[in-house]
Amino acid sequence: MVQTDTIFNNFAGVRSRTFFVSLLCEFLGVLIFSFLGSTVSGPMGPWVNGLALAVLIYTAANISGGHLNPAVTASTVFCGFYPILRQHLRRAGPARILGGICGSLLVAGLLPGASVGMGDSGPGCFEPAKGLTKSQLFGWEVVMTFTLISAVYACGIAKPGHGSFTPLVVGLTLTACAGTGAQWTGAALNPARVIGPAAVFGCSKSTWWIYVLAQIMAAALACTVFAVVSGFGPLFPVKSM
Amino acid sequence: MVQTDTIFNNFAGVRSRTFFVSLLCEFLGVLIFSFLGSTVSGPMGPWVNGLALAVLIYTAANISGGHLNPAVTASTVFCGFYPILRQHLRRAGPARILGGICGSLLVAGLLPGASVGMGDSGPGCFEPAKGLTKSQLFGWEVVMTFTLISAVYACGIAKPGHGSFTPLVVGLTLTACAGTGAQWTGAALNPARVIGPAAVFGCSKSTWWIYVLAQIMAAALACTVFAVVSGFGPLFPVKSM
Amino acid sequence: MVQTDTIFNNFAGVRSRTFFVSLLCEFLGVLIFSFLGSTVSGPMGPWVNGLALAVLIYTAANISGGHLNPAVTASTVFCGFYPILRQHLRRAGPARILGGICGSLLVAGLLPGASVGMGDSGPGCFEPAKGLTKSQLFGWEVVMTFTLISAVYACGIAKPGHGSFTPLVVGLTLTACAGTGAQWTGAALNPARVIGPAAVFGCSKSTWWIYVLAQIMAAALACTVFAVVSGFGPLFPVKSM
Amino acid sequence: MVQTDTIFNNFAGVRSRTFFVSLLCEFLGVLIFSFLGSTVSGPMGPWVNGLALAVLIYTAANISGGHLNPAVTASTVFCGFYPILRQHLRRAGPARILGGICGSLLVAGLLPGASVGMGDSGPGCFEPAKGLTKSQLFGWEVVMTFTLISAVYACGIAKPGHGSFTPLVVGLTLTACAGTGAQWTGAALNPARVIGPAAVFGCSKSTWWIYVLAQIMAAALACTVFAVVSGFGPLFPVKSM
Repeated sequence: MVQTDTIFNNFAGVRSRTFFVSLLCEFLGVLIFSFLGSTVSGPMGPWVNGLALAVLIYTAANISGGHLNPAVTASTVFCGFYPILRQHLRRAGPARILGGICGSLLVAGLLPGASVGMGDSGPGCFEPAKGLTKSQLFGWEVVMTFTLISAVYACGIAKPGHGSFTPLVVGLTLTACAGTGAQWTGAALNPARVIGPAAVFGCSKSTWWIYVLAQIMAAALACTVFAVVSGFGPLFPVKSM
Repeated sequence: MVQTDTIFNNFAGVRSRTFFVSLLCEFLGVLIFSFLGSTVSGPMGPWVNGLALAVLIYTAANISGGHLNPAVTASTVFCGFYPILRQHLRRAGPARILGGICGSLLVAGLLPGASVGMGDSGPGCFEPAKGLTKSQLFGWEVVMTFTLISAVYACGIAKPGHGSFTPLVVGLTLTACAGTGAQWTGAALNPARVIGPAAVFGCSKSTWWIYVLAQIMAAALACTVFAVVSGFGPLFPVKSM
Repeated sequence: MVQTDTIFNNFAGVRSRTFFVSLLCEFLGVLIFSFLGSTVSGPMGPWVNGLALAVLIYTAANISGGHLNPAVTASTVFCGFYPILRQHLRRAGPARILGGICGSLLVAGLLPGASVGMGDSGPGCFEPAKGLTKSQLFGWEVVMTFTLISAVYACGIAKPGHGSFTPLVVGLTLTACAGTGAQWTGAALNPARVIGPAAVFGCSKSTWWIYVLAQIMAAALACTVFAVVSGFGPLFPVKSM
Repeated sequence: MVQTDTIFNNFAGVRSRTFFVSLLCEFLGVLIFSFLGSTVSGPMGPWVNGLALAVLIYTAANISGGHLNPAVTASTVFCGFYPILRQHLRRAGPARILGGICGSLLVAGLLPGASVGMGDSGPGCFEPAKGLTKSQLFGWEVVMTFTLISAVYACGIAKPGHGSFTPLVVGLTLTACAGTGAQWTGAALNPARVIGPAAVFGCSKSTWWIYVLAQIMAAALACTVFAVVSGFGPLFPVKSM
């Protein structure tokens, strides 16, 4: 069973060995997720991304919570479900972004034809399809990321959730979203996946911020809906005022 | 674990905050389900529809029961598994139909080339394949919707059911049915999915009622078979006479 | 949870209402399984067959055990896991074969272009690929059916098994086998699936017995391996001597 | 539920009947896994391999642990999670390699056009794609095998793990890896799968050792990361010094 309490306790003890182990897990998880998800091409794209996310969350769940997605963490922080400690935020965010960057570096090293700084054709780079306006790009990423984060809330944070089904559900949510949205936005749903290739290959220069902004917007939206349903977390700032 | 009792209790308290939260969940669930399922094209169609249904039921299950399908609710009402209160029926039905309509509006807004009132080529519109007679269309939708609702009965309402496997099973039932039936009927299995696009894009003018009639027929049929196996629910009208 | 004991008890009481309900379930289950699995064409074939099997076993599991496959029942009877009562065998076998036949009749009614007695091009008919010898056909069906029945033993009959995972595992076993074997033998793995279309469309005249023989051979083989691992069932004939 | 303790106890009693039953299971499991995974071609490749692995682990899990992969066993032995008895290693290793070889022999017998000693076009043979350097081949196999073994550790060995989800997670890990990596390395992730076809068809003469070396490297790496997270097993050699 996914042990939600253990997860939060691990993060609570920021100075402990457990905390560093958690950071290592998140780093490696995002790295492998980015590598597998960026190198795939063709019809297996939504499956490799969704299944890789699912199995890596299973692998990391009992150690670090296995978010592997800064937008999910941001949403839980907004609603008070994470210890809002400066040190935590200073480290956990960068660990995942760094994982995304190292994943793209690994792509550059292991994929024939890929090289650092190769631009918009870099594997794993996100770019909206032709004909999609910037507002539509923003809308798609909000809807998809909102769906993903809401699944995390309902299955992994609410009680009773769905225990060890959670990683599978979250991964299949990505598959369902990418199965239709990949042809329009690339189906990022995750800031670390956008920033990693952008930093390594130098792509998405004019659009990366729309993706990230939409994902943060979705994080706030999902947190709001969840708060209407189940209330805020114990660390919600207004509560402690 | 999916908590069947909680689900029914939430709906029982029609005036409570929980009830309005349930309606919100059903509305958002059908909206996102319609959006993802209507925008997909090509071989991922049965998968995106089935997986989106599964993950949205997971997300909504512990709040509203996550039916997301008026035919399923109709069937449970026929057999006495839902509080038959006027207020409930007045609100829960429209919430889902409204979700379907808003899902199609979102499609019109976010999908390049789609626009309100565009007719039979509207994304998510249902139309039988050429060569399929009206009786065959009716037959296909009855068989497929019957299979879907029977899975809901066996996994989510009968005791012992299959707990948190239920949303996955229901979603995969849609994938299995759509995997073969989508080429013939489009594989609707859900009145909200038929009425949403029909209202927004103005399509399925001569066939929408066959879909809906077949689905209601399947609802009655599935309820009958379930009653033979397990008996009627506590709210079956004849019981209280 | 799948309740193995309930399943066997239901079948034990041959004259009870429960027993007739079980027959109804098996009949409807095989009918729908045959219908969905026979009408599918193209790359979704292994998926529709495997997922339809999985969800129909979920639906029938707690009522009739949800075998939906005479080869599985034959194997459990060989090893003593089923009440070997004449009345049971007289009825349960025909109920499934009848389900397969009615499934093919439904195909003939609902699929444009299909008609009773249309011969080898009938939807759902099994025929080995060109270049495959009769011994190779026999070998493929033995290996695949053995894999399927062994999964049933390990997950659904052995204790501790895998509870409510069992139907999913059995369905995915069919998907895995059909994913490679469908191009060679059609991947039947089930006498009811072979006999149904053969009877309705008049196909597989020279090969149907090879399929069925291989499946019965696999049933005996799987039962033997399971007996080596876990022993025979309480009704194994030699035990009661 | 997967009973980890039972698994290790079965292997502990090397002379017992249970141990020989375990060897039989591993032999048959690898044989069928190799057969199904080697005969598949086209887009179902990652699915047949991943699903076959999942269902065969389900089938073998409660008897032998169902590793079906010498690299996984090697990793657990490195970290002290297996009884390091000479007799065990002498028998369990060869049982799996023998399973791989017999699987390829079965392919040669049942697949039209396949024959012993046919060389690099033998079904199931691994060969890197053109343009992939030896270091890149090594890197891909390390990353993918590391991901697979880490999933085994997190779900099947760590406590609390993910119980009966484990075989599904491990199988889907293979699907996710093969979904992208199959086009570059063939996605072996398993020495028995490399050595079996190499021995029977006489292929991979200049590359098989790179695959096996990368897999053993990944085994050591995964064991190291797991030890940082959770500590070594009770049989870790240095502990008993």
